[in-house]
Amino acid sequence: MITVSVDLGERAYPIHIGTGLLSRTELFAPHIGGTSVTIVTNTTVDPLYGDMLWAALAPLGKQVSTVVLPDGEAYKNWETLNRVFDALLARHADRKTTLIALGGGVIGDMTGFAAACYMRGVPFIQVPTTLLSQVDSSVGGKTGINHPLGKNMIGAFYQPLAVIADIAALRSLPERELAAGIAEIIKTGAIADAEFFEWIEANIEALNRRDADALAHAVKRSCELKAGVVAADEREGGLRAILNFGHTFGHAIEAGLGYGEWLHGEAVGCGMVMAADLSVRLGYLDEASRKRLVTVVAGAHLPSRAPALGDARYIELMKVDKKAEAGTIKFVLLKRLGETVMTSVPEDALCATLAASV
Amino acid sequence: MITVSVDLGERAYPIHIGTGLLSRTELFAPHIGGTSVTIVTNTTVDPLYGDMLWAALAPLGKQVSTVVLPDGEAYKNWETLNRVFDALLARHADRKTTLIALGGGVIGDMTGFAAACYMRGVPFIQVPTTLLSQVDSSVGGKTGINHPLGKNMIGAFYQPLAVIADIAALRSLPERELAAGIAEIIKTGAIADAEFFEWIEANIEALNRRDADALAHAVKRSCELKAGVVAADEREGGLRAILNFGHTFGHAIEAGLGYGEWLHGEAVGCGMVMAADLSVRLGYLDEASRKRLVTVVAGAHLPSRAPALGDARYIELMKVDKKAEAGTIKFVLLKRLGETVMTSVPEDALCATLAASV
Repeated sequence: MITVSVDLGERAYPIHIGTGLLSRTELFAPHIGGTSVTIVTNTTVDPLYGDMLWAALAPLGKQVSTVVLPDGEAYKNWETLNRVFDALLARHADRKTTLIALGGGVIGDMTGFAAACYMRGVPFIQVPTTLLSQVDSSVGGKTGINHPLGKNMIGAFYQPLAVIADIAALRSLPERELAAGIAEIIKTGAIADAEFFEWIEANIEALNRRDADALAHAVKRSCELKAGVVAADEREGGLRAILNFGHTFGHAIEAGLGYGEWLHGEAVGCGMVMAADLSVRLGYLDEASRKRLVTVVAGAHLPSRAPALGDARYIELMKVDKKAEAGTIKFVLLKRLGETVMTSVPEDALCATLAASV
Repeated sequence: MITVSVDLGERAYPIHIGTGLLSRTELFAPHIGGTSVTIVTNTTVDPLYGDMLWAALAPLGKQVSTVVLPDGEAYKNWETLNRVFDALLARHADRKTTLIALGGGVIGDMTGFAAACYMRGVPFIQVPTTLLSQVDSSVGGKTGINHPLGKNMIGAFYQPLAVIADIAALRSLPERELAAGIAEIIKTGAIADAEFFEWIEANIEALNRRDADALAHAVKRSCELKAGVVAADEREGGLRAILNFGHTFGHAIEAGLGYGEWLHGEAVGCGMVMAADLSVRLGYLDEASRKRLVTVVAGAHLPSRAPALGDARYIELMKVDKKAEAGTIKFVLLKRLGETVMTSVPEDALCATLAASV
């Protein structure tokens, strides 16, 4: 087991990474203070890992209950979130009740937001079961739900007490979701660590075939890099925005097609290719680096052709991005592999990238 | 104008108290950083003060818009809150958009919660127009909405950038709402400052007839006392719980009758009388002090007979109170006027108080 510390002062927490962690009672014990625990999971994950988590919690002698939500980004909304509140209130869950998020990013984001809001804040633990949630949504404290007019528009910054990332859970992951997770790993290398980017290029096949050591290293390094960025900028004042590389285009793709059509990581994969195109077009990035990014995205079996939504629709969707200010879209672009620049862009360059990408 | 500072480190903010403040552009100017402002108000307050606030904001050259919600505690729910999000997203409100809550406690709580959640947090200013919201909900950063199974169960701790309490706005306040505000003033004296309690006893008629100087002093002293408690315990770990004197019974009354039947302050007025009865019954408080509390509550024209919900229903409702832990109800009781004790209580004493109160 490897442990990465997210250094946020009194909100600091550990990320434990390794194989078989879901069964280890002693990893949960230090973080459960009250008398009851509510596991929030979905209809796909509960049959796979629900019993295992219950067995791990049993020796602690707490009242354990489970809320099973429908699976998918399409359910990341208020109605589904409210089922968690309904269950907590029906069970008289108090302020010391610990919520455990057992699932991917949608479950993690919704459970974290439920924990942030229930009685104005209860403790929670994340048990991410997808590669994407292990490398991405388990670091940074971003929680929330979607609104019909924008993704993750309603939410909170709220940190878990611990993240327990079981690499063994990735064995059951569908191929598309594995690739979606690799997209965020590629992103982390591209924005912050050229050496890690090279490691990904060299190990893309090991990641594709779910080699446990390669996955554990990729999760660890991604979490470390992201944790460093988040520790420097917990509430997204500046530096943290670099984590949105590929996300401005990606969010537009997801919203434009309807949430759930493409996976978030697939949209980010394609969004990174688009952002790299724009970076070259504006003279920030060299063509060879762009090609390396395109190659590794393709190597992870991620889409690199954008859906044809039309320029006007893309621009409209990007204007509601949370990074936009007074209607001006801010893009995270690459200066080189491992280094970013944040900038607004002329509309003709943006349209040229859109034309070249669909 | 008097200014009370709420000392919360980087989240510190001023409460300005005085007559005619709503029109003073310079009080708003320092707290509006972005290019747009959205006023959230209700159908009762907007016709009274909406234009005045627009006029005060006009010289700042910001894009101003208003969201008008239906009036009343019955609308303090997700559906109404979502109308704020709908409006913000439809107008492409960005992360620097400032929300201004113009109205009473319901508007303040919902606007604060909307500000806490929209894009995971935007700035907001409170302009409380009721006595209750000036003395109570504008200090402490508690925001939220009700759930059918409990009041204020979904929310966040989120501080405004400033509170602007215009005493002139209290002239239009209905009698019942004036009394409801006085209830929280009485509460503050009863739990924290015997001298202020005496001042209230001596000035209850001046408050009833809306004497501007008496109201300004009462608002200032209540805010100071509450600000001191909140600064010592921002997230309600311990000390802050004393502010809930009268609220455990009061919340049960509000929930039992259906939100909106009694005003919050009316329920707190009655709840304080019930808590004082329980305090005497358990030997914490002397009978003479209880009678002084009953007299001042009656002097403010607040109800002191509780609705007959039945003991079982009262106890069930109090068990979902946020201060309850593992099903045990914690009460804030009086040791003397100006000093509290927090304790669980034997059920027979609780039932005796309920029997004596209905």
